[in-house]
Amino acid sequence: IDAVCTAHGLSVAEFHALRARATEAKTRAYCPYSNFRVGAALLARAGEGEGESGGRYVLGANVENASYPVTTCAERVALGTAVVEGLHSGNGRGFRAIAVSTDAEGPASPCGMCRQFIREFCELSMPILMFDKNDTFIVMTLGELLPLSFGPDNMGVKDPAKP
Amino acid sequence: IDAVCTAHGLSVAEFHALRARATEAKTRAYCPYSNFRVGAALLARAGEGEGESGGRYVLGANVENASYPVTTCAERVALGTAVVEGLHSGNGRGFRAIAVSTDAEGPASPCGMCRQFIREFCELSMPILMFDKNDTFIVMTLGELLPLSFGPDNMGVKDPAKP
Amino acid sequence: IDAVCTAHGLSVAEFHALRARATEAKTRAYCPYSNFRVGAALLARAGEGEGESGGRYVLGANVENASYPVTTCAERVALGTAVVEGLHSGNGRGFRAIAVSTDAEGPASPCGMCRQFIREFCELSMPILMFDKNDTFIVMTLGELLPLSFGPDNMGVKDPAKP
Amino acid sequence: IDAVCTAHGLSVAEFHALRARATEAKTRAYCPYSNFRVGAALLARAGEGEGESGGRYVLGANVENASYPVTTCAERVALGTAVVEGLHSGNGRGFRAIAVSTDAEGPASPCGMCRQFIREFCELSMPILMFDKNDTFIVMTLGELLPLSFGPDNMGVKDPAKP
Ligand SMILES: [Zn+2]
Ligand SMILES: [Zn+2]
Ligand SMILES: [Zn+2]
Ligand SMILES: [Zn+2]
Repeated sequence: IDAVCTAHGLSVAEFHALRARATEAKTRAYCPYSNFRVGAALLARAGEGEGESGGRYVLGANVENASYPVTTCAERVALGTAVVEGLHSGNGRGFRAIAVSTDAEGPASPCGMCRQFIREFCELSMPILMFDKNDTFIVMTLGELLPLSFGPDNMGVKDPAKP
Repeated sequence: IDAVCTAHGLSVAEFHALRARATEAKTRAYCPYSNFRVGAALLARAGEGEGESGGRYVLGANVENASYPVTTCAERVALGTAVVEGLHSGNGRGFRAIAVSTDAEGPASPCGMCRQFIREFCELSMPILMFDKNDTFIVMTLGELLPLSFGPDNMGVKDPAKP
Repeated sequence: IDAVCTAHGLSVAEFHALRARATEAKTRAYCPYSNFRVGAALLARAGEGEGESGGRYVLGANVENASYPVTTCAERVALGTAVVEGLHSGNGRGFRAIAVSTDAEGPASPCGMCRQFIREFCELSMPILMFDKNDTFIVMTLGELLPLSFGPDNMGVKDPAKP
Repeated sequence: IDAVCTAHGLSVAEFHALRARATEAKTRAYCPYSNFRVGAALLARAGEGEGESGGRYVLGANVENASYPVTTCAERVALGTAVVEGLHSGNGRGFRAIAVSTDAEGPASPCGMCRQFIREFCELSMPILMFDKNDTFIVMTLGELLPLSFGPDNMGVKDPAKP
């Protein structure tokens, strides 16, 4: 854990908070179709002048639908909530990490659709922490999980995650 | 407005709050691809024992993506946030109304995907308030906007919006 | 059936072909997650100069994904295939009807997302035929299933289904 | 090109056919919202006993919608069409390659949602060929574009792409 934190610019306390909150978020899942609970916790950077304690954790959980394609995932709920709160841009803001927790044996990774959604707002170096039911974890960066990504640049739009 | 409120069980103050908050939410939109801002405000019922002031407004805005199909709409962000907060079920909770506001001339309605997402958690009698840039509005119920809907019953799952 | 055909401009033979092909399409479903098979058959209008026999039936079935929101529905597969074949526009083309068939007891309707997808290319008067496992059916027009729809007009784009 | 073909088990003729068909498919795009045309060509393996000429090319193009999230991409249209035709499984079938072509300067990659959709049916070693408007190209495997993927195994379903 120490090595992971050092590599990705997190404190050990932040690592534990991400894990605890993603696990807590899992209890909010609405998943009567899959019975596969997923929780997410997103760590937003403190804005300038907000002080170290200005960081924010935003939670998400999967919200399923009778029409499966209308379902949304934990990661996208957390990030959508955060964007509406204005945590994605301006004043030095942005995101430092996202954690995902499931009930599976072995960490499950964000689906491709969520990797793409995260890509819009987060730097490629941002760590994604994946926890299984026993708190076994894997950490990979967004850039590792979505190499050669399709992004705002491809559509002629300024990348919100770049300075 | 009085007649609309009476028909749909809202107070005039709630109507105005829904309009004001949906309009405010519009400023949170991330829409560099369409430049079409949409704001939503969802009114959650107070839980039992919470008192009249227990109602809650949850905001949403559209969050677009370089890959258009990965975009999410204002209505779904608001409702996803609310479900993660546990406002959709238990203890007499649920939703009383949703308002949507755009910059268009003439009220724009929720897309079919959002109607389906709303369907999962709201009663067919719930009003959907649609405001244009001049506060001209139309109110229709979910059942009117999504007749003969596909829902949890079709998949053998208990409908969260039914007692 | 006679009355339905008259009301919606279909011959009885076309009605039977739509039913048979939607039912056949159901066998192509990939749905290991829901086990809910859906088949669709879309009837494309003959282009000018192609003669009466120029009409085409295009099939679709639901194609699910381990990530539920990445799933696509039968109706959207059929219509996507048809658009790529150029059957949606030009030369008098367009669509005359779509049929959907499931294994349920009682006809199931297209989800809101599919209604929206169909809306882009079809006239509001186009009939949607819904068959259950016993061939019990309901027919409604697109306009009836998606009232006050959000469409190309709202985004300043020419509606492909309008002359 | 020779080296690429050797590495990925394609003949030079197949490589050229994939490029030509993806480029041709681009002309079928319906994209009045983004004006970003994408074409895809999927090469399906010949079934057993069908002979070398039994391989099939299936085309796709992006099909947009006034509601951006209801849009579907070229890759998913091609693969959805192919699954409905039964080309994904049984009798030694499956997919050997997919090519994508755009009008951009520099090859554009499939979005995360499409990578996830492809993941359901294709082996991780399958090559994805990306061509820009000048036929400059990049080839990467599915496994390289979607590392540590979320798939059927995670949901307890047999992976259709594994023997
Ligand atoms: Zn996801
Ligand atoms: Zn919507
Ligand atoms: Zn559907
Ligand atoms: Zn895509």
